[in-house]
Amino acid sequence: MSDRDQIEQLRSRLSDGAVVTDPALLESYLHDEAEWAAYGKPVAVVRAGSTADVRDTVRWALEHGVPVVPRGAGTGLSGGANALEGCVVVSLEKLNQVLEVNPLERLAVVQPGVVNDDLRKTVATQGLWYPPDPASSPWSTIGGNVATNAGGVCCVKYGVTRDYVIGLEVVTGTGEVVRLGRRTAKGVAGLDLVGLFVGSEGTLGIVTEITVKLRPLPDPGRTVLGYFDGIVDAGVAVRDVAARGLTPSALELVDRTCLLAVDEMTHMGIASEANVVLIGKVDDPGEAGERAAQEMVAAFETGNATFVAETDDPEEADAMMAARRLAYPAMERLGPLLTEDVCVPKEHVPEMLRRVERIAAESDITIATVAHAGDGNLHPLMITGRGDDEAKARAQAAFDRIIEEALDLGGTVTGEHGVGLLKMPGVTRELGPEVLAMERAVKQALDPEGIFNPGKVF
Amino acid sequence: MSDRDQIEQLRSRLSDGAVVTDPALLESYLHDEAEWAAYGKPVAVVRAGSTADVRDTVRWALEHGVPVVPRGAGTGLSGGANALEGCVVVSLEKLNQVLEVNPLERLAVVQPGVVNDDLRKTVATQGLWYPPDPASSPWSTIGGNVATNAGGVCCVKYGVTRDYVIGLEVVTGTGEVVRLGRRTAKGVAGLDLVGLFVGSEGTLGIVTEITVKLRPLPDPGRTVLGYFDGIVDAGVAVRDVAARGLTPSALELVDRTCLLAVDEMTHMGIASEANVVLIGKVDDPGEAGERAAQEMVAAFETGNATFVAETDDPEEADAMMAARRLAYPAMERLGPLLTEDVCVPKEHVPEMLRRVERIAAESDITIATVAHAGDGNLHPLMITGRGDDEAKARAQAAFDRIIEEALDLGGTVTGEHGVGLLKMPGVTRELGPEVLAMERAVKQALDPEGIFNPGKVF
Repeated sequence: MSDRDQIEQLRSRLSDGAVVTDPALLESYLHDEAEWAAYGKPVAVVRAGSTADVRDTVRWALEHGVPVVPRGAGTGLSGGANALEGCVVVSLEKLNQVLEVNPLERLAVVQPGVVNDDLRKTVATQGLWYPPDPASSPWSTIGGNVATNAGGVCCVKYGVTRDYVIGLEVVTGTGEVVRLGRRTAKGVAGLDLVGLFVGSEGTLGIVTEITVKLRPLPDPGRTVLGYFDGIVDAGVAVRDVAARGLTPSALELVDRTCLLAVDEMTHMGIASEANVVLIGKVDDPGEAGERAAQEMVAAFETGNATFVAETDDPEEADAMMAARRLAYPAMERLGPLLTEDVCVPKEHVPEMLRRVERIAAESDITIATVAHAGDGNLHPLMITGRGDDEAKARAQAAFDRIIEEALDLGGTVTGEHGVGLLKMPGVTRELGPEVLAMERAVKQALDPEGIFNPGKVF
Repeated sequence: MSDRDQIEQLRSRLSDGAVVTDPALLESYLHDEAEWAAYGKPVAVVRAGSTADVRDTVRWALEHGVPVVPRGAGTGLSGGANALEGCVVVSLEKLNQVLEVNPLERLAVVQPGVVNDDLRKTVATQGLWYPPDPASSPWSTIGGNVATNAGGVCCVKYGVTRDYVIGLEVVTGTGEVVRLGRRTAKGVAGLDLVGLFVGSEGTLGIVTEITVKLRPLPDPGRTVLGYFDGIVDAGVAVRDVAARGLTPSALELVDRTCLLAVDEMTHMGIASEANVVLIGKVDDPGEAGERAAQEMVAAFETGNATFVAETDDPEEADAMMAARRLAYPAMERLGPLLTEDVCVPKEHVPEMLRRVERIAAESDITIATVAHAGDGNLHPLMITGRGDDEAKARAQAAFDRIIEEALDLGGTVTGEHGVGLLKMPGVTRELGPEVLAMERAVKQALDPEGIFNPGKVF
């Protein structure tokens, strides 16, 4: 069968308009936001309108040996959704319904294309909360969040996506539609395939429905702002927050380069007051919260904060957190970004920040850092001018050195963005050949024909 | 090589005294506490003194095709640790050291033979808390808890074992020693093999070291006691706790038969006051806790409690919780128990309790119920006189009917005890052939020779 006939066969099996081959339209499905990662040209994009569309696409791909690349909103930062040459991209964007919000069971059932913030808004109307909040929450989808086991700002207290997913509907590597997991509060019937699929970056199957646990909406809480002269000082403050046994509900770091970029985009003018900002939150109710905020102030002072204050102005607190969330888009305006995502033990946050500074100086590269600092999850962003290939080579070398240093400090090469394409060399080093062999064996067991996102992650 | 020579070869490879073949000693390694599950006779028991002992036993077993049954304290309730005919039982009881408690990173590193309560006591000296608290916590080990993904009393608020395990050392199905997971707060480097091993009931490998997350010790909290005439009334109260959006830190149910048994063992005299008891706890600090306790009182009243009170007497609260924890050992004195472990959506707790009552009446079997009621996780205990085979057959039929009803209500056949041998038919019904095939494929991928706990779970 010719390629053209194959596509027509696919078109005939799926719902009307699901199969896209118009080159202009394909353009927007080629890659995610990992600008440095390679990508190929798909033979088609399927904008699935139902689980049946996904299943029939997978069956078609199995018949013809076509690689399948699942895709959410394309906000990933590791190339996990990048098209492979000759693949079919399965976009879940149209499966965007919140199917159920159940306050008594404290769960929601959603399709994978639901945008993170939309889920959060929907459940908030019933006093409920879906905590995982990646900086991409206005755009990224729950399906993509599940694929990468997305983290975010509140993870330091409330955990990551995997901590909230209890059930999945999945199209498998043999083209079956199965239900994994449960709706009950607990359950241990068999292996934890749900947890295995979360964070598997589209390599094991395609998720077509997700059941998530919810929490009650938390108290708005208290915000502590700290300004620091240097980034290592801020790191010392972060370590001291942990050493004091505090449980912040957020502890974010934004460095000078990011502040300048945000100022340029928003005219907020933060950089005129601070070199490095820490934004801490605590949401324990009542006196416990007051005490925790005071302890956080003391921890920031341990890091020689040049200014530190608990703000009781929610607008100021929101503005600061907005600056943190805008850091990535603001930086993207400056040129192609190479995004790090290392995570180190909290004890080593100051040392890791020191090493990143040293690498920047020695590489003659601008490295801006934002961080979920309370988790030890750092995002050094390497910026180079467009078309400056020498700088790009130096940035790549700096990227590799940062990975090396994170592993040296007992860290991981990816805290929350996933492996995709960019982190494959780092993961190989982190896991070693025996563990990689185990992961490949599991992949092979669930995707025997190797059609899901081949050549990524492992 | 003769069987005898094989054992001598094993003995020569392991640390002195690790290999046990004395029939009198073997006796105590034949089965766990699932009295109704079948077991066979092992060729030897290895009381491993090191990871190397475990590794070398697995390599020996691979050479000779001997099944390997890993074993913790043997407090399991599904037969997961039961010896298979001709197997080697690997007991982890001697690997009982807490290797590290790290308050700054909020983690502990332990060997699998550490008793749950011992870990809890050790970390408490540093103001830290390991939440998962199965009723077996004075005896069961962390390794066994990991194997079954054990739950417990506080899971209703704080989650189960899987929520706390972030790293493992494992002896694999190819006889390698590997490290899975991380020490950092977050990490998404590759598939979640840690989560996959938790709850895998010794079918994928043998865990030789465990890294767990810790929390700060919670407030002692407030206890609300409710007495009810009937068990369905108590179920209505449980549902109302959920409907009011409360987050109890415990919500336990003990029925009349259990209360009588506990009274008989302890002379506490609870059954003279109550038919069915609910023990609720809330541990939010300050006013929030007060409000939650008042709401819980109101919820208990919705269930027509005959008596309800918030107790500010910690001794009374502890006594009630102790009665809950003693229910199982107290019942065991009455005869062989067949233990159910279904978990249903919270909405259906009253209906499920009603159906269990009906099944007891129709089967002419004593069914006593204790429950992690707030999770919908019910433990109906079927009791028969020793040697009464007819009653035993009726109990088995009742057991199967309870599973049927739980599935009918959208529940699972095992909330926290695991599949082992007893729940295999139920799990087959719950998961269906496609999902079971996926689980078997994963098992085969990681245990290609099929030596770990063959014939169980799947």
